[in-house]
Amino acid sequence: MSEDRLSLNQWTTQRWSLREAVDGCVRHGVPAIGLWRQQVGEYGVAASARAVRAAGLRVSSLCRGGFLTSGGPLDDNRRAIDEAAELGAECLVLVVGGLPGVPPGATPPAWFSRDLPGARARVAEAVDALVPYAARSRVRLALEPLHPMYCADRAVISTLGQALDLVERHPPEWAGVVVDAFHVWWDPDLPAQIARAGASGRIAAYQVSDWLHPLPPEILLGRAMMGDGVIDLRAMTSAVLSAGYTGDIEVEIFNADVWAADPDEVLTTMRRRYRQMFADS
Amino acid sequence: MSEDRLSLNQWTTQRWSLREAVDGCVRHGVPAIGLWRQQVGEYGVAASARAVRAAGLRVSSLCRGGFLTSGGPLDDNRRAIDEAAELGAECLVLVVGGLPGVPPGATPPAWFSRDLPGARARVAEAVDALVPYAARSRVRLALEPLHPMYCADRAVISTLGQALDLVERHPPEWAGVVVDAFHVWWDPDLPAQIARAGASGRIAAYQVSDWLHPLPPEILLGRAMMGDGVIDLRAMTSAVLSAGYTGDIEVEIFNADVWAADPDEVLTTMRRRYRQMFADS
Repeated sequence: MSEDRLSLNQWTTQRWSLREAVDGCVRHGVPAIGLWRQQVGEYGVAASARAVRAAGLRVSSLCRGGFLTSGGPLDDNRRAIDEAAELGAECLVLVVGGLPGVPPGATPPAWFSRDLPGARARVAEAVDALVPYAARSRVRLALEPLHPMYCADRAVISTLGQALDLVERHPPEWAGVVVDAFHVWWDPDLPAQIARAGASGRIAAYQVSDWLHPLPPEILLGRAMMGDGVIDLRAMTSAVLSAGYTGDIEVEIFNADVWAADPDEVLTTMRRRYRQMFADS
Repeated sequence: MSEDRLSLNQWTTQRWSLREAVDGCVRHGVPAIGLWRQQVGEYGVAASARAVRAAGLRVSSLCRGGFLTSGGPLDDNRRAIDEAAELGAECLVLVVGGLPGVPPGATPPAWFSRDLPGARARVAEAVDALVPYAARSRVRLALEPLHPMYCADRAVISTLGQALDLVERHPPEWAGVVVDAFHVWWDPDLPAQIARAGASGRIAAYQVSDWLHPLPPEILLGRAMMGDGVIDLRAMTSAVLSAGYTGDIEVEIFNADVWAADPDEVLTTMRRRYRQMFADS
């Protein structure tokens, strides 16, 4: 496979502004980019949309909406949908949120909820409420199961099967899932669920990075460049492509060393690894 | 529920010798103990068996055999079975091992395997090979799914459903599963799998601790005293008991602060939390 399906998720080159990331993709022949709302907001949504269009880049995803478990208003998610529409993003990634009251990565306050089934029910309700708005905006929502180690604070949806159960109540055009290698590689049911997701046209995004072993002290930063961890990414990518996924392969790496490195070197390595790992796919 | 089903897993009071842990259980009115092979080995297997019998303690489990993914000889696991028999343990806990060549908690060497399905197949073969020996020794093997964050280095069996698929090929008397709250609380399929395990008489041990949020830098030590984390332990315990489990509720806490505390205070707290959390069960 050539690099015609490679996408840079801009969090991989976190220190680059939107403008710098767009220019970097062009410079390195990367045809797609996954955007983050922070950087888009700093550059301006309209300006960002113009920049990616002028550069001829596909927007493989916009990260992210979600955090749906607290049952609050969905205003910010509707704004995220509007932004995804303006950017022409293939999907808006939703990280659904953890137990109500449990802050991401920080000690819980005196009150929080241990009601995991209740939190999951709220996610289902919020997705049901958001899909019609997304459909009107012609934006595809992409529910992302996160690794179970983030269940308390970031995502009560931990498996691809769970995510599919939720989105299958809606048309595939507007409700899909993210397959992120780091989050789902351990799942014994993964091959079956990738096939299920592919058969129903639900794979909205495919994100790759590797599982660093041992994990660093900050578990959010346990992702590595493809090939530097323990995941059989070649097999997983083959499964995703065999399931009928025709979108981009987006490289999203949360890693202190990668963030500290020269972004141009990161893109050079990323391209090389992509070729090495997915050449036969 | 009174404390008649409370068990101290001796790793919770790691600095106590076997003798001290047995005496501690007696002093605090704890009627059962989960033993570890290290401490049993230091005190001697025969002496350990005499000590627990003289104290009138049930041995709710022996930790642990396993690490079956490398395909080596099973001699050490057969020795562990012999020890469990001599100790009169309710079961021998098996932690199945991670990807071949990936050392627990440490950086992999130049060679290791990314073949997760292959590792799982080796576990199945090893369990098949060990069950007849366990049956002859009248020892029950208890397969323990570990949290998916340990998939690389400690256990390629991550869910209760996966563990049940493996043990259901054998008689329930000799092949069961461990339900460990810390490892399985996130699983969307947990209620169904607990019911399945109970219906077929497969719950060999029930271990409790809580999920600390945020996790400490050393993820192996992310367990907390019941009530100090985010798990709805009352609901889980109710599900396990409703499924027909009649064994002990074993408290197994890997936590630097708990290990640093006075073990007598740990047992006092453990008894109090046990009464608070499981009083209505």
